[in-house]
Amino acid sequence: MSFSREIELDGHIIDSGIVENVLDTILDMGGDFEFLVFEVGKKKTDKSYAKIRISSDNCDKLDGIVSRLHRHGARLVEVAEVSLVPAEGERIVPKGFYSTTNYPTEIKYSGGWIQVEKIEMDCLIVVNPDEKRAICTPMDKLRQGDLVVMGELGVKVYPPERSRDHNEFEFMGGGVSSERPTETIIAKIAKEMVELHQRGGKVALVGGPAIIHTGAAGACAALVREGYINVLFAGNALATHDIEYSLYGTSLGMNIKTGDLVSAGHKNHLYAISEVMRAGSIRAAVETGVVRSGIMYECIKNNVPFVLAGSIRDDGPLPDVISDARIAQDEMRKYVPDIGMVLMVATMLHSIAVGNCLPAYVRTICVDINPSTVTKLMDRGTMQAIGIVSDAGAFIPMLLRQIRLMTGQSEE
Amino acid sequence: MSFSREIELDGHIIDSGIVENVLDTILDMGGDFEFLVFEVGKKKTDKSYAKIRISSDNCDKLDGIVSRLHRHGARLVEVAEVSLVPAEGERIVPKGFYSTTNYPTEIKYSGGWIQVEKIEMDCLIVVNPDEKRAICTPMDKLRQGDLVVMGELGVKVYPPERSRDHNEFEFMGGGVSSERPTETIIAKIAKEMVELHQRGGKVALVGGPAIIHTGAAGACAALVREGYINVLFAGNALATHDIEYSLYGTSLGMNIKTGDLVSAGHKNHLYAISEVMRAGSIRAAVETGVVRSGIMYECIKNNVPFVLAGSIRDDGPLPDVISDARIAQDEMRKYVPDIGMVLMVATMLHSIAVGNCLPAYVRTICVDINPSTVTKLMDRGTMQAIGIVSDAGAFIPMLLRQIRLMTGQSEE
Amino acid sequence: MSFSREIELDGHIIDSGIVENVLDTILDMGGDFEFLVFEVGKKKTDKSYAKIRISSDNCDKLDGIVSRLHRHGARLVEVAEVSLVPAEGERIVPKGFYSTTNYPTEIKYSGGWIQVEKIEMDCLIVVNPDEKRAICTPMDKLRQGDLVVMGELGVKVYPPERSRDHNEFEFMGGGVSSERPTETIIAKIAKEMVELHQRGGKVALVGGPAIIHTGAAGACAALVREGYINVLFAGNALATHDIEYSLYGTSLGMNIKTGDLVSAGHKNHLYAISEVMRAGSIRAAVETGVVRSGIMYECIKNNVPFVLAGSIRDDGPLPDVISDARIAQDEMRKYVPDIGMVLMVATMLHSIAVGNCLPAYVRTICVDINPSTVTKLMDRGTMQAIGIVSDAGAFIPMLLRQIRLMTGQSEE
Amino acid sequence: MSFSREIELDGHIIDSGIVENVLDTILDMGGDFEFLVFEVGKKKTDKSYAKIRISSDNCDKLDGIVSRLHRHGARLVEVAEVSLVPAEGERIVPKGFYSTTNYPTEIKYSGGWIQVEKIEMDCLIVVNPDEKRAICTPMDKLRQGDLVVMGELGVKVYPPERSRDHNEFEFMGGGVSSERPTETIIAKIAKEMVELHQRGGKVALVGGPAIIHTGAAGACAALVREGYINVLFAGNALATHDIEYSLYGTSLGMNIKTGDLVSAGHKNHLYAISEVMRAGSIRAAVETGVVRSGIMYECIKNNVPFVLAGSIRDDGPLPDVISDARIAQDEMRKYVPDIGMVLMVATMLHSIAVGNCLPAYVRTICVDINPSTVTKLMDRGTMQAIGIVSDAGAFIPMLLRQIRLMTGQSEE
Repeated sequence: MSFSREIELDGHIIDSGIVENVLDTILDMGGDFEFLVFEVGKKKTDKSYAKIRISSDNCDKLDGIVSRLHRHGARLVEVAEVSLVPAEGERIVPKGFYSTTNYPTEIKYSGGWIQVEKIEMDCLIVVNPDEKRAICTPMDKLRQGDLVVMGELGVKVYPPERSRDHNEFEFMGGGVSSERPTETIIAKIAKEMVELHQRGGKVALVGGPAIIHTGAAGACAALVREGYINVLFAGNALATHDIEYSLYGTSLGMNIKTGDLVSAGHKNHLYAISEVMRAGSIRAAVETGVVRSGIMYECIKNNVPFVLAGSIRDDGPLPDVISDARIAQDEMRKYVPDIGMVLMVATMLHSIAVGNCLPAYVRTICVDINPSTVTKLMDRGTMQAIGIVSDAGAFIPMLLRQIRLMTGQSEE
Repeated sequence: MSFSREIELDGHIIDSGIVENVLDTILDMGGDFEFLVFEVGKKKTDKSYAKIRISSDNCDKLDGIVSRLHRHGARLVEVAEVSLVPAEGERIVPKGFYSTTNYPTEIKYSGGWIQVEKIEMDCLIVVNPDEKRAICTPMDKLRQGDLVVMGELGVKVYPPERSRDHNEFEFMGGGVSSERPTETIIAKIAKEMVELHQRGGKVALVGGPAIIHTGAAGACAALVREGYINVLFAGNALATHDIEYSLYGTSLGMNIKTGDLVSAGHKNHLYAISEVMRAGSIRAAVETGVVRSGIMYECIKNNVPFVLAGSIRDDGPLPDVISDARIAQDEMRKYVPDIGMVLMVATMLHSIAVGNCLPAYVRTICVDINPSTVTKLMDRGTMQAIGIVSDAGAFIPMLLRQIRLMTGQSEE
Repeated sequence: MSFSREIELDGHIIDSGIVENVLDTILDMGGDFEFLVFEVGKKKTDKSYAKIRISSDNCDKLDGIVSRLHRHGARLVEVAEVSLVPAEGERIVPKGFYSTTNYPTEIKYSGGWIQVEKIEMDCLIVVNPDEKRAICTPMDKLRQGDLVVMGELGVKVYPPERSRDHNEFEFMGGGVSSERPTETIIAKIAKEMVELHQRGGKVALVGGPAIIHTGAAGACAALVREGYINVLFAGNALATHDIEYSLYGTSLGMNIKTGDLVSAGHKNHLYAISEVMRAGSIRAAVETGVVRSGIMYECIKNNVPFVLAGSIRDDGPLPDVISDARIAQDEMRKYVPDIGMVLMVATMLHSIAVGNCLPAYVRTICVDINPSTVTKLMDRGTMQAIGIVSDAGAFIPMLLRQIRLMTGQSEE
Repeated sequence: MSFSREIELDGHIIDSGIVENVLDTILDMGGDFEFLVFEVGKKKTDKSYAKIRISSDNCDKLDGIVSRLHRHGARLVEVAEVSLVPAEGERIVPKGFYSTTNYPTEIKYSGGWIQVEKIEMDCLIVVNPDEKRAICTPMDKLRQGDLVVMGELGVKVYPPERSRDHNEFEFMGGGVSSERPTETIIAKIAKEMVELHQRGGKVALVGGPAIIHTGAAGACAALVREGYINVLFAGNALATHDIEYSLYGTSLGMNIKTGDLVSAGHKNHLYAISEVMRAGSIRAAVETGVVRSGIMYECIKNNVPFVLAGSIRDDGPLPDVISDARIAQDEMRKYVPDIGMVLMVATMLHSIAVGNCLPAYVRTICVDINPSTVTKLMDRGTMQAIGIVSDAGAFIPMLLRQIRLMTGQSEE
């Protein structure tokens, strides 16, 4: 006995690798296929269309294949509205729920297709029947009675299609190589940042304390001041050492300009936190003139929002740190919809956390001296990330320099 | 004009590197020194004693030198009681406070020397004058009016001395090499664990989810069951994937036994969390028979306590996860005083967090495929860590095997 | 004005990613395309066929595109014999020469298609007109007057097609992750080795000295003895430390069983070389009973050929080491045609060197504690390599154990 | 029964860690000790002196201890001339030979102390009795009848003493951290290079092809031209890709300025080699105007000698490449005595090879994106190396910039 279902695909599905992925998945999962229709876009700008019958001798396996194909953009030919099941309780998902991708997604509901809001990967879709809205909902936010979309029927996803043009980052494609022209790559990123800036787009920096330790605080602060970083996601350490450097010239007690360990310098980060505690907040410390430079200073002065998420290795922490991870996640998610590009520098934990919340179409650059940070980021689903194996202390000053060259600013 | 102060050192100060560190520090910080007394322990078991006058043309610099020397175990010859200053407010340290090391520490107070309780690095010492107790206090816990020890006067630290015997881990000394005999190293660790176990000592495992992904969940659960892991510090991911593996045989959707991606397997970790949510807690899920194997199961069954600390990359999380980092730190600290050995496997964040809370005399083994995890752990002050560059999926099963060989158990 | 050429593709060109690569290349290089024919294989076992017209406004660019497409298996529709140009001198390639891929290759010559012998990447094809043979020739071997194939006209390559079945190593696909089930992966490799062995196929080990340093010499010697390693490519260091370990129980002076540095042990490797020098060769040292165990011993006893290539960091070297790199390359190439599988363990230089000589269809497993070794191997064109981030000292004993389990041998 | 021998130490033996290392070794090897004399240099500039009796219940163990202590600068109090034994044959060392350190070394011979010439680690000392000279001799050069120094009696080594001043690279001390201020470190290296240059000292660059791939060829060529690199040790790849870049603007076929893969660019390195083959040598290619820029060009134009050592992964190779590793080693050794500083950039094999030939007092900087390169270099005995985890493509341009800033040159 054999079971079968029909799916369809359209768009630039050949050169975007979608047909390949679909067949690959069927073969790997032991299914069979037959092309019912394959209309190939003859020319570069033409779209293609395929209708494929998938079959298997096992009904569950067939469902498994279809579920996986769905994530590559395949739609069931059968048209039906999504089916909904109310959640049994807080953080309890119904068996067979639809798990989101990070691609733009629509559901068929109440007679039409509606766009899923706030899409991010590995979440549920909860439908609000009164407002006819579909909201991508992390498990953490699932509450009893929420109406959850089940299975793939009635759901369409739009995986990214290959651009019709030359891909600027083509050469970055394979793996995480450190053997690429550093200045050329940085110039390309600078160009994207300048263009995004000119279009009014926003760049998020996800940064670790190595930015300060490696001596890039000044250049990073300049990027904020000059408008090229528009939201900051970081932890207690980046903010603390930035303020430590601003107040005492040290980071973890080392004088950044000389490389010397300063007398009693290991206490400086606790003094820095104390100064901010006394003021009440980073904003207050800036406004009362306690903190007069640095990344956090420029954020305050230029109204660049920041989210400082706590972690179990924090000293202090600063009063602005959100020590509850679930609240910090919510706070970060508020800024995600506006972001056009993310620069992740020298922080694995924050990079993966932010990567999890991003739609796949957001340009994502991950810079780390350690190639495994990029590998893990991709392993966790942020496939769009472009990895650059470099040193924060070199990368950020060179990026600033390139941006200034492009925008005709003299170096300060 | 010249300023000077006298310090003294005693114990096995030559072969423990203490005299070297002291002179090195003075030279690096531009001070001068003169040996006033140097009585060298003639024989292997004799102790040595040195009295050194430090001088400098700058009073602040001299204080800086003395402060740094203190951390190597140097005491000011001047004998005085500690001076105390009340904290101005929550998380506001007084200028000039004494910052702790992770060595055993005593203060001179109220006529005698008292031991500082709960010592860990980079904290303050707060004195309770009524009870005549001195408590090592992280900045996070500092409250208005707490009496804080100032400067180094009246404080003694006891850096670890070199053992008089052959050092089993001698060959691990330099750097983080991957070119060492894997089975030999594991046998040595197994031996220490067995001996500690026989003495009634406790081992903490600080573990990351790669333990599950690399297929070591079963061996790790056996270590818990057989009594070789006595407390577990981890995050949501380790517990979730352990339970996912127990319920569905997968980790992040991959069948661990076959390496295949399972149909719809990417939803399994959310189902696992749901099952625990429905039960109410991991304990309840074990006791009602929902979870019947794995690391968390063995922890519950064998009364091995665990602390699951939340992070911003968590899905779910499980109901047992403490999402507030400050509360999670407190919870972890409760178990630290009883720990005789820490095994850190495949987790940088947790390793550094736990390392921060450990006294220096706790044997600390850090196993990671990535040498930079060990480097960072040491950079953050956990100098006693022994780094092993290996794969969790090979290390833990081999460790279990060695322990069983040593204790005469047949392999199951 | 516009230039165009027509190419054709056939086989399992969709799911093998060939059509995607072709379109991707055209788009990246700024060309245009039109599908003239696209016959899609309807069912899993049917082949597909495509004829595509490529066009560009620039003749050189068009040639560049066609040249790149060729490497993906595209053939020009124009049928012509290869054109040949004699080489001007030793190691002087004619402008416009055809540069080989590591895929099976045929040329149209003298009225028929002939197979290119000894195919490896980045070489020339030299035609012997008398014997009507085409030999893949590294630049190093090119001599004045050699008849060199020019351009892509008359050359066909056969890129690997995706298997019609489930791919055992599917889950290894993306990047170089360390988060995979170690024992499962090793079991799969063991299975392939056992099957290859049973079919009479040959496995080459490309090994670095870390095999000895990490304590895997015994397990590795057993693999040779039991017939699972059939040729060895290594350097002076592996052979020297193997013999050092056999004679003195040390590797670089460290007792592998205890981890202790042995008195005067740093001289042992020079003694080991001396013993072999005195005997005259490794074979003589084995046959006269000087060397009685180890990897090299088993190679001699079991007639497993080895090539020891010299490098500028060698001590000694052993008399069997071929210190001239060009001669060593030739020697290695002699064994390549018989190899069915290559296991590369803990050596970057040798892995890349051997990888360069391998046809793409040879199963290639690269095991290294350092993910960048695998990345570099792939960057240098050995795209078929499967990377495993693990520790030689754990990997080899676990591999031996799995092979013995599968073949029903008791553990010794 | 107990055996004992007396050793003595003098100099800045406390703060240089020598006394600590001596006691540490005795304890680790299970010996006993008694201080017979310990005169401590009271002040910073005073030297110290110690006479220690070592004892053990085992005569061989005692010899082992003394042999190891010797390497820390300990001398036997017994004064005797070295004993000599003739080598039995080529590359056959006499049992009990003296194995060199990389510290300055003297032997007592023929009534006086003579300096050992060409000192490097892990070699033998061969005495020429006619000329009363002692030559450090690698095993490779040992010939029948050579008079080889035996044991430690009559040999003195001078381990480096700690400078009396502030150590500029103090902060680099522990491990291979990537969390250091990049620009500050580079400024310090630039300062040393400028000072060495002004004193007429020589800098060797040991470089890998990643210098070209990462886009640093231009900056590196400028360092040669401006006199800051005075000898070059590299392989075929660096020279080939440098000339490829000079001729075609590509490295491994990638346009370094745009990051694009160039049509047929994968053939460019073979064309580059062909051009040099046709000219006959790199010098001829420069002098006939074929090569007009780049690192190799500047070496020729500025009479900077280079040694290109072959390896088994070479394509071509260039006619200047010395494919025999033993000859290449000899060639490299010719330049070692004049070198004041070595900069190792992005090459593990060459770095270790050169490190093996360097006396310990040569300032050695090792720059690699991969921390394990530095770890291995130190594991192989080049303990003086300062490791910098950074990207060649950022490091070299930043170094050039710093040197120009210091020497008042405007940027070009």
